[in-house]
Amino acid sequence: MAMHQAIWHGGDIGTARTLFPDAPEPWIDLSTGINPYSYPLPDIPASAWQRLPACAEETALVDAARAAYRVPARAGIVAAPGTQILIELLPLLAPGATRVAVVGPTYGEHARTWRKAGHAVEEIAEPAAADAAQVVVLVNPNNPDGRIVPPARLAALGQDIAARGGLLVVDEAFADFDGDASLVPFLPPATVILRSFGKTYGLAGVRLGFAIAEPTLAQVLADRLGPWAVAGPALHVGARALGDPDWLRTAARDRAADAARLDGLLGRAGRVAGGTSLFRLLETAEAPALFDRLGRAGIYVRRFQDQPHRLRFGLPAGETAWARLDAALQVNRP
Amino acid sequence: MAMHQAIWHGGDIGTARTLFPDAPEPWIDLSTGINPYSYPLPDIPASAWQRLPACAEETALVDAARAAYRVPARAGIVAAPGTQILIELLPLLAPGATRVAVVGPTYGEHARTWRKAGHAVEEIAEPAAADAAQVVVLVNPNNPDGRIVPPARLAALGQDIAARGGLLVVDEAFADFDGDASLVPFLPPATVILRSFGKTYGLAGVRLGFAIAEPTLAQVLADRLGPWAVAGPALHVGARALGDPDWLRTAARDRAADAARLDGLLGRAGRVAGGTSLFRLLETAEAPALFDRLGRAGIYVRRFQDQPHRLRFGLPAGETAWARLDAALQVNRP
Repeated sequence: MAMHQAIWHGGDIGTARTLFPDAPEPWIDLSTGINPYSYPLPDIPASAWQRLPACAEETALVDAARAAYRVPARAGIVAAPGTQILIELLPLLAPGATRVAVVGPTYGEHARTWRKAGHAVEEIAEPAAADAAQVVVLVNPNNPDGRIVPPARLAALGQDIAARGGLLVVDEAFADFDGDASLVPFLPPATVILRSFGKTYGLAGVRLGFAIAEPTLAQVLADRLGPWAVAGPALHVGARALGDPDWLRTAARDRAADAARLDGLLGRAGRVAGGTSLFRLLETAEAPALFDRLGRAGIYVRRFQDQPHRLRFGLPAGETAWARLDAALQVNRP
Repeated sequence: MAMHQAIWHGGDIGTARTLFPDAPEPWIDLSTGINPYSYPLPDIPASAWQRLPACAEETALVDAARAAYRVPARAGIVAAPGTQILIELLPLLAPGATRVAVVGPTYGEHARTWRKAGHAVEEIAEPAAADAAQVVVLVNPNNPDGRIVPPARLAALGQDIAARGGLLVVDEAFADFDGDASLVPFLPPATVILRSFGKTYGLAGVRLGFAIAEPTLAQVLADRLGPWAVAGPALHVGARALGDPDWLRTAARDRAADAARLDGLLGRAGRVAGGTSLFRLLETAEAPALFDRLGRAGIYVRRFQDQPHRLRFGLPAGETAWARLDAALQVNRP
């Protein structure tokens, strides 16, 4: 990943160190929406590292994902080494689209990818403004503001878009803790839904994501990924974690409590404008100065190139981190 | 991976079990060219699983790969989650090519991918027959026969192809044990060289491969993979293993000895028609019957859909495996 990308994504403490060379260590990384309480890593058999991933192992992962995400039997599902690479492939599913609408502001990789593939991309404020766009892209719940468009409304939108020969993309990277927000059980035609493994399970380094779509669309993505797309250890860890609904239920409850606690701290520094159980969005005119003050205190949060009044905060883990964040936010002016 | 693909690739013991349900366990898998003596897995820090792969970690891997493969400073290099996905992306580098020539018979994924992307693909017997093809694809050393085209000849070919605005693809998946066979130090223009991590190091489940090319070509591939393409554990294991030339030297010597021993056994069943230190190619009119006989004895080898007189054998590991192979080959007629 080139450094210029890293500066505007979160998750790279090397970037934080470059920006704030005098900050105290260890850094507290709140720059992502990755669960800081990871799913416990199971023992991984040596064969998962040594052998090519086998059909049976891929099937076990996909079966676990179908159950966890409530994928209809009629739908296809493709596992990939991270959602990012699926985002990069989506323009293959609508090669002739002249108008692509991204509901935003949102995660920047969607607009970037469609533009890179040669499409005209416009940002729209809500799905109703999609008008006659052939491709509509929505992150739901949205990143960074957590706005949720109800599945029933998206199902209707998907039908409309299918009727005009288009494509609806719904990125559910942050839907795991809120099953009711998911469009997966109601998958409309001409719709691709993305799910991410690493954020909820706190295992972003594993690189594992899924696309759920009608079988013909899913097959285009699978063909482009080719065989053995997902690493053996990722198949093993993913199947175990996705097959553990008890862990998910407990994590959803605990992270919601963390998010509420975080809102309590952030409310002193500005307006909490939403988020999910894995990140909260702060709006304040002082955001650039606050980013700097937090950085100098060794706390790395997510800023946005085109939304200078916003900062996104991931969840602190452990009382030391909470205390350091509390202290850094106490000072009212930088 | 769909079952119909698995039947003609190696490496999936589930497929072998389906083909030969009564075979004795454990299976001896000789169906791949993966080193059965894996690089010892280092301890992997929890952060490699939990965090997004960081720039510094990717840089460490790429630096180790540059040194191991002797990549010229002027050249670009891209790390990917397996060579397969790079093969799938190569048609992006020559979108207008009307004639693609693959030197064969060889690894089938190259022709399959270019055809899938809509190109006319012809198989040619040697690079000199490339004629005016815009794209020439060569596996060097070749899989399955081990034929090596000297780098000096390929460098000249690359210059010719560059002069006519084409692309040369050299897949060096099996070049690690024979540094003199590599074109990397002499990288011509308009040339992409692929290197695979998993075969030599016996860690195919890790999914790690590289493309080496002039920076503009490498950037097209990097852009399409997007950020965080390689998993954290793969970055860690890959950097460690590629930075260990002593292990590579010992493995090259030991696997060459295994290959010579394997030739001794195979010579009784037909003609050894070449190979590398990780696999040997047997030619015999009895190949289909021998495939069945070995399968019924729990030994899975690689057959070829369009070359029914050939079988490819990976290296046995351990005296039990050698003895079982020896016994299964003793019977001269099926």
